[in-house]
Amino acid sequence: MRKIYDAVIVGGGINGSSIAFQLAKRGYKVAVLDKGKIAGKASGAAAGILGAQTELAEDGPLFQLACKSRSMYRILIPELEDLSQVHIGYQNKGVYKVAANKEEEQTLKRLIESQQKAGEQAEWFSIDDLIKREPSVSNKLRGAMYIPNDGQVQAYELSLAFAKASMALGAEIYEYTHVSDFILKDEKVHGVKTSQGEFLAESVIVASGAWSREVLERAGLSLPIIPVKGECFSVIPEKPLVQGTIFSHGCYIVPKQSGRLVVGATVKVNSFDEKVTLEGISTLMEKAQNLVPDIAKAEWERAWTGIRPQSADGQPFLGEHPVYRGLYIAAGHFRNGILLAPATGVLMADILEGKTEQPNPFELSRLESLVHTSNGVLL
Amino acid sequence: MRKIYDAVIVGGGINGSSIAFQLAKRGYKVAVLDKGKIAGKASGAAAGILGAQTELAEDGPLFQLACKSRSMYRILIPELEDLSQVHIGYQNKGVYKVAANKEEEQTLKRLIESQQKAGEQAEWFSIDDLIKREPSVSNKLRGAMYIPNDGQVQAYELSLAFAKASMALGAEIYEYTHVSDFILKDEKVHGVKTSQGEFLAESVIVASGAWSREVLERAGLSLPIIPVKGECFSVIPEKPLVQGTIFSHGCYIVPKQSGRLVVGATVKVNSFDEKVTLEGISTLMEKAQNLVPDIAKAEWERAWTGIRPQSADGQPFLGEHPVYRGLYIAAGHFRNGILLAPATGVLMADILEGKTEQPNPFELSRLESLVHTSNGVLL
Amino acid sequence: MRKIYDAVIVGGGINGSSIAFQLAKRGYKVAVLDKGKIAGKASGAAAGILGAQTELAEDGPLFQLACKSRSMYRILIPELEDLSQVHIGYQNKGVYKVAANKEEEQTLKRLIESQQKAGEQAEWFSIDDLIKREPSVSNKLRGAMYIPNDGQVQAYELSLAFAKASMALGAEIYEYTHVSDFILKDEKVHGVKTSQGEFLAESVIVASGAWSREVLERAGLSLPIIPVKGECFSVIPEKPLVQGTIFSHGCYIVPKQSGRLVVGATVKVNSFDEKVTLEGISTLMEKAQNLVPDIAKAEWERAWTGIRPQSADGQPFLGEHPVYRGLYIAAGHFRNGILLAPATGVLMADILEGKTEQPNPFELSRLESLVHTSNGVLL
Amino acid sequence: MRKIYDAVIVGGGINGSSIAFQLAKRGYKVAVLDKGKIAGKASGAAAGILGAQTELAEDGPLFQLACKSRSMYRILIPELEDLSQVHIGYQNKGVYKVAANKEEEQTLKRLIESQQKAGEQAEWFSIDDLIKREPSVSNKLRGAMYIPNDGQVQAYELSLAFAKASMALGAEIYEYTHVSDFILKDEKVHGVKTSQGEFLAESVIVASGAWSREVLERAGLSLPIIPVKGECFSVIPEKPLVQGTIFSHGCYIVPKQSGRLVVGATVKVNSFDEKVTLEGISTLMEKAQNLVPDIAKAEWERAWTGIRPQSADGQPFLGEHPVYRGLYIAAGHFRNGILLAPATGVLMADILEGKTEQPNPFELSRLESLVHTSNGVLL
Repeated sequence: MRKIYDAVIVGGGINGSSIAFQLAKRGYKVAVLDKGKIAGKASGAAAGILGAQTELAEDGPLFQLACKSRSMYRILIPELEDLSQVHIGYQNKGVYKVAANKEEEQTLKRLIESQQKAGEQAEWFSIDDLIKREPSVSNKLRGAMYIPNDGQVQAYELSLAFAKASMALGAEIYEYTHVSDFILKDEKVHGVKTSQGEFLAESVIVASGAWSREVLERAGLSLPIIPVKGECFSVIPEKPLVQGTIFSHGCYIVPKQSGRLVVGATVKVNSFDEKVTLEGISTLMEKAQNLVPDIAKAEWERAWTGIRPQSADGQPFLGEHPVYRGLYIAAGHFRNGILLAPATGVLMADILEGKTEQPNPFELSRLESLVHTSNGVLL
Repeated sequence: MRKIYDAVIVGGGINGSSIAFQLAKRGYKVAVLDKGKIAGKASGAAAGILGAQTELAEDGPLFQLACKSRSMYRILIPELEDLSQVHIGYQNKGVYKVAANKEEEQTLKRLIESQQKAGEQAEWFSIDDLIKREPSVSNKLRGAMYIPNDGQVQAYELSLAFAKASMALGAEIYEYTHVSDFILKDEKVHGVKTSQGEFLAESVIVASGAWSREVLERAGLSLPIIPVKGECFSVIPEKPLVQGTIFSHGCYIVPKQSGRLVVGATVKVNSFDEKVTLEGISTLMEKAQNLVPDIAKAEWERAWTGIRPQSADGQPFLGEHPVYRGLYIAAGHFRNGILLAPATGVLMADILEGKTEQPNPFELSRLESLVHTSNGVLL
Repeated sequence: MRKIYDAVIVGGGINGSSIAFQLAKRGYKVAVLDKGKIAGKASGAAAGILGAQTELAEDGPLFQLACKSRSMYRILIPELEDLSQVHIGYQNKGVYKVAANKEEEQTLKRLIESQQKAGEQAEWFSIDDLIKREPSVSNKLRGAMYIPNDGQVQAYELSLAFAKASMALGAEIYEYTHVSDFILKDEKVHGVKTSQGEFLAESVIVASGAWSREVLERAGLSLPIIPVKGECFSVIPEKPLVQGTIFSHGCYIVPKQSGRLVVGATVKVNSFDEKVTLEGISTLMEKAQNLVPDIAKAEWERAWTGIRPQSADGQPFLGEHPVYRGLYIAAGHFRNGILLAPATGVLMADILEGKTEQPNPFELSRLESLVHTSNGVLL
Repeated sequence: MRKIYDAVIVGGGINGSSIAFQLAKRGYKVAVLDKGKIAGKASGAAAGILGAQTELAEDGPLFQLACKSRSMYRILIPELEDLSQVHIGYQNKGVYKVAANKEEEQTLKRLIESQQKAGEQAEWFSIDDLIKREPSVSNKLRGAMYIPNDGQVQAYELSLAFAKASMALGAEIYEYTHVSDFILKDEKVHGVKTSQGEFLAESVIVASGAWSREVLERAGLSLPIIPVKGECFSVIPEKPLVQGTIFSHGCYIVPKQSGRLVVGATVKVNSFDEKVTLEGISTLMEKAQNLVPDIAKAEWERAWTGIRPQSADGQPFLGEHPVYRGLYIAAGHFRNGILLAPATGVLMADILEGKTEQPNPFELSRLESLVHTSNGVLL
C-alpha cells in the first residue's frame, strides 16, 4: 500500500485532529495516523477545563495564545457539532480558583490584578460570596478568584468531533497504524513508513503528545518533552453539587453533563505508566472532600490515567523541523492540550502555508538552548 | 422512617419520572421509589425511537395519543435539558420503514394512505429514491415508507433528564427502595410499605413497567401484563452509515450521537431473563447486515437486554384502581414507553386532578374482559 | 408452567446452593429459584474469609458451628471442584488479627487464651515476629493474633461451584424467577408462586439473605433481619505483599489468587443501596495503607458492594416456620455466610429429614423475644 | 536511569516470560520490558489450546518441538503455580478435530495414520461415537479425529504465571517501557534504549510477537513476520456443553473453567487493528452453532482480538541476529505461541549458553531465502 497525500499527521489526539480539520477546510488531502484509536490517550483522558486564565498565570505569548484559543470555541463548537454529529458538552459557567489560606488569597488577588491589566475578566469572591454562588463548597476556604470566561468541554467528545468533522471534509483516518520511520531525502520529508505501508506526503506534522520525542528521534531530533502521568476519577452525586469548576492546588472538580463530576489530577513526572494507583486516587479523594465535603456521598464511577507531554520550558513546540523541510511539530501542550487545540490547528495550517505574519514564539529555533543532542546526529 | 407526600410513584423508569415531572410542576410533593437505580431496566435499555407512525399501524386512540406525545417533545426537550443539565440527543431525521418484498411494499403503501388520511405525513420511496437519500441501505430492498416526523432520543438520558428535572422542581427520588405492600384502608390507598419504611401519600401511582403486575397483586389486582424480553446491541462504524432510522420487520438500526448505531430488538414473550443470548444477537446481526451491508465492518461495542411490559390488548393501562381510590396505574406501554412518556405524564396528572374532559380509553374498566382473577380477592 | 419438586429453595446465594447440594446428594428433586443471577448479591461480593476464630470472638453454639463448618472445607473443596469444574481458590494460610494499640493487644491476648481453652489454635506474634512473617505489614502496629486454621476462598467461585455441583447431581436452577407468594394451606406449605408460574414442593426453604424478611412477610413472618451494606475494593500489587489475611478493626486485606488483594469492608446499617460511595472507599483506602503501607503503590482495579443480612441477636435462623410445616428458613448469616455455608447445608438437610439429634440453638422458637409482629397476622 | 543486566527481554508476552523464567532459574539477572502491560496483547487473548497434533498437521521439526513443548506442561504447571500463586487452569481432556464432509473425513483419517506413525496418539470417532462422548455436538458432522494428548490452559493466567514465577526467582519486570533502539557497537549488542532510559545487558532477546519486525528494524533486520488479527468471543452456557475442545476449519470451541466457552478465531492477514467487527463475530457465531447447536442458548459474555505473528515460512525464528552477537530473536509463533512457550524458553536459554547440541532448524540463517532487505542496511 502506498498512498499519497498533501499532509500526513502523526497522532490522532485532539491537536492532530484539530490540525487535520483546519487543513481539510483549506482543501488539503489529509491523512491522520494513530498507533491506536483516535483520542485514545491524553485527549480522551482530560477533564476538559478550558483554563486559559486558570492554568496560565503569567501574561506572555502562551497566555495570549490560550485566551485566543478559548475565544475560538464559541464559533467552533456549533460548526463541529453540525459536521460531526457529536455532542461536545461545551459549558461556559466559569472556574473558581480557590484559596485555602491567606498566602494563596494574596497570590490570587495579585493574579486578578495582573489579568485584569491584560484585559481579561477576573474577580475575587470572599468565602461568603463564594458559598452564596456555590453552596456546597467548603466554608474552611478563604475565597476564590472567579474566572467567568474559563469554561469546559467533554474532552473525548471534542477530540472525536474534530476527527469526524475532518472526515466529513475528506480527511482520512488510519487507526492502529504505527509510524516507524520518516522518508527523508535532500533535507526534505517525503512521507512516513508505517505498519500499514508507506504514506507519501508533501508535509508531515508530528502531533504525538508525550510520544513525540520518540517519534522525532527517527528524524534526528531529541525534543525535550517528558511524559507526566496524571490520574483522575469520576463520581455521580445524587444532586448537582457545583455549577462552575472548582480548582485548587493539586485538585479540581469539574461538573460534566448528566451530573457526573470529574476529579483530577495527580502529577507523576517522567512516567508512561498508565496504571491507576491506590495512592493516587486516595490522595485526590481526600483533597476533593476538603474542597466540596458533600462529594463524600457521591457514587463512585471509575478512575483512569492520561500521559501529558511536558516541554522543557513549559511552552509547546509549534513549528518546522530545523533541518528537514516539510516536517512540522505540534507537541508539548502539557495540561493545556484541549484548551490550545483550536489555535494550534489554525497556527499550524498557517505555518504550512507560510502565512504567519509575526514572529512565532513557539518555533523550534529556541531548541538550541533546550535540546539534548541525539546520537550526535543533529543539533 | 415515615414520610408524607402528596403522591408516591412506584417505579423510576421513564413513565414514572415523566409523571413525577408533571406533578412536581403542578406543585405536588412527590416521591419516586425504585427498587434499583433510576432508568435501570427497560427505559435505560430502549433504542429510543419515537415511532408514533412506525410502530402503531392503525388509527385509533393509541395512535392519537402517540402522535400527540411525539409532538410534545419539541417543547419538552429544551425545558428538560435546561432543568436537568442532561443532554438528551433528540433527533428528528425521520424513520424509513422498509419493504423487503412486494407484499410488504403493498402493506406499507396502504399504511401510507391510511396515515395520510389521519392527517399524518408519510410517503413511499422506491429503492432508487431510498438509496439516493440513504446510500448504505441494501439495494435488495423494494423501497421504504418514509416518516419524516418520527424521530428518536437517547432513552437513558431522557429518563435521567425527567428524573433530574423533577428533582430540580422538588421531587425526591429513592433508589434501592422496594415496595413490599400498599397501605389500604376503607377502599382508599394511604401509602406504601417499603424496604426503607413507610411512605404515606394521598395518591400512589404504579409505573413499574413489566413488574407492575407483581406490584399490583398486593392490591388484589392481576393486571394482564406480561414481560417481553428484547435484546439489542451497538456498533461503531468508521463513517456514518445512515442518517435516519432504518426499520424493518424484526430489526431496526438507529443512528445515535457520537456515531454509534443501536440495533434491536429480539422478542421473547413471557421472560424476565436479562441475559443476552448468542442466538439473539446472532439473529439480529444477520438481519442488520441484510438492511445495511456495510454495518459488517463496524466495530462491536456491547449487547444488552430490556424487559418490556406487554398488555393483553396492546394498550397501556392509564387510570385508577377499580376498588382503591387514590391508587393509579400507568403501565403496559410495551415498545412505546419512550414515545408515550410525555403524554402519559400529563394524562396521569390530569387524572389525579380529575381534569380529564373526555372519556379515557386507557382506563382499567376494560379489565373485566381482560383480567384473570387473582386469588379470588378481586374482580 | 407448574412444576413439582421435593424441595424448592428461594435464593441462589451460597447458602441456598449449599442446601441444594446436600439435598441433591441425598436424592431429593430440588429447584433453586433466584430473582436475579446465581450468587449475584452478597455471596458474589464477599471477600471470602473463613474467619471462624477471627470473626466470632466468643465461644458458644455459633462459634462451634463455625469451627465445624470451616473444617468441612477440606473434604468439600475437591468434591465441589470435581463435580463443578470450577476452581475455588481455597487457601489455608491463616489470618493475622492485628492490634493497633495496647488495649487491642490485651483484648487479643485474652481471646487467644479463651480460644485455646475451647480447643482451637491461636498465638500471639509481637510486631517483630509479625514482620518476620509478613514483612510488608506496618511496623506501627503492636502485633497480631495469628490464627493458622482460618483460611479463605474465592466467594463467587465457591457459590458457583455449589450451584453447578448441585446441577450435576440433578438440581434445577431458575434464574430471574421472582417468588411473589407462598402456596399455603392447612398450616402447611405446598409451593411458591413466581414470575415464571407455580412451583409445587413438599418443602420450601427460604435462603434469601437480606431479602429474607420481605420474602417471609408473605408467610406472615416479620423476621428480624436487617440489610447491612458493605463496600469493598481490589488492587493488584506488583509483587505479593502478604501471604496471610491481615485483619483489623474496620479493615481487612485478603490476598487472592493471581496476586489480587481484596480490601473490605465498610458497614452501613439498614441499607439496600448498592452504590459505592467515595467516602466508603476513601476511608477503606486510608485504613489499608495504615495496615500495609506499600499497598499505596498497587494498581487500582475496582470497587463493589454487598448487602449482608444481620439478625437481631447476631445468630442465623436455621429452622422451620412456627406455623407452616414444610416451610424452612436459613437466613441471617451476616458476615459469615461463606464460612457457614457447608454446615448450613448439612444442618438444613438434616432438619428436613428430622435427623437432628440434639436441640438446635438456631431454630425460630427464639423469635418470641425477637420478632416484631407483622400486620397482626402472626406471632 | 541506567541499569545493568545479564539479559534483557523485549516483550512480556508468554514467550518473553517463559524465556525470563528459564534464564532466572539458571541464575541470570533478567529484565523483561513491555511497552504496555504483561500479557496485554496476543498472549492474553489466546484461547489457550495446546494443539500440537491439532494445529500442526505434518511431521517435521516444528511438530517435534510442539509435541515436546506440550509434554513439558505436566511438570511445568505445578512448578509455576507454586511459585506464582496463579491458577493456570490446565486441562487435558483432548481435542476433537471434526470433519464436516467426506473429504475432510478422509484428510483426517490420513492425518491420524501419519501421526500414529510419528508415535503420537490419535483415533477416528464416527459421528455416533463422537456423540456418545460429546452429546451436544451436531449430528450433521461426519465424525472427528480424537487427540487425547492435546489439552488447554488459561492463556492469560499462564503468561502471568510465567512472569510472576520469574519475579519470584529475581527477574525484574518493567511495564509501560518502550524500546526505541538498540545499543550496538562492534557487531555486538550492549543493551537497549527505552522510554525509561537505557538498560545495559550482555544479551538482548526480542520476543515481541507481531511487533518484532518493527523492533528489529532498529537493528537493520526486516524480519518476515506479519500481523494476523484474530477475533474471539466467550459465552456461558447454563450447563456444560462439551468436555473436550471442538475444533473445525475456521472455528473452535474451548471449554474453560467456571463453565465459560471460548470461541475463536477469525483470520485477518496483515492487520494490527484491535477492533472487533460485527462481521467477524457474526461469522464465528454461525460456525459455532453449526458445531454445537445448543450454544445458541448460551449467555453472551464478551468479544476481543489478538494480533498473532505469522512468519513467512510458518516456522518461528529462534536464534541469534545474523550480524550482532548477543542479540537474539524468539518470534513468529503464529497461533502456537502458548503451546510452544515451554520449549521456546528452554531452547533460547540453551542458545544463549551455547548448549544446543544438534543443528537448530529455527535459526535465522534461513532468512536469506525469506527476508526482504530493509533500506539496504543489511542482508
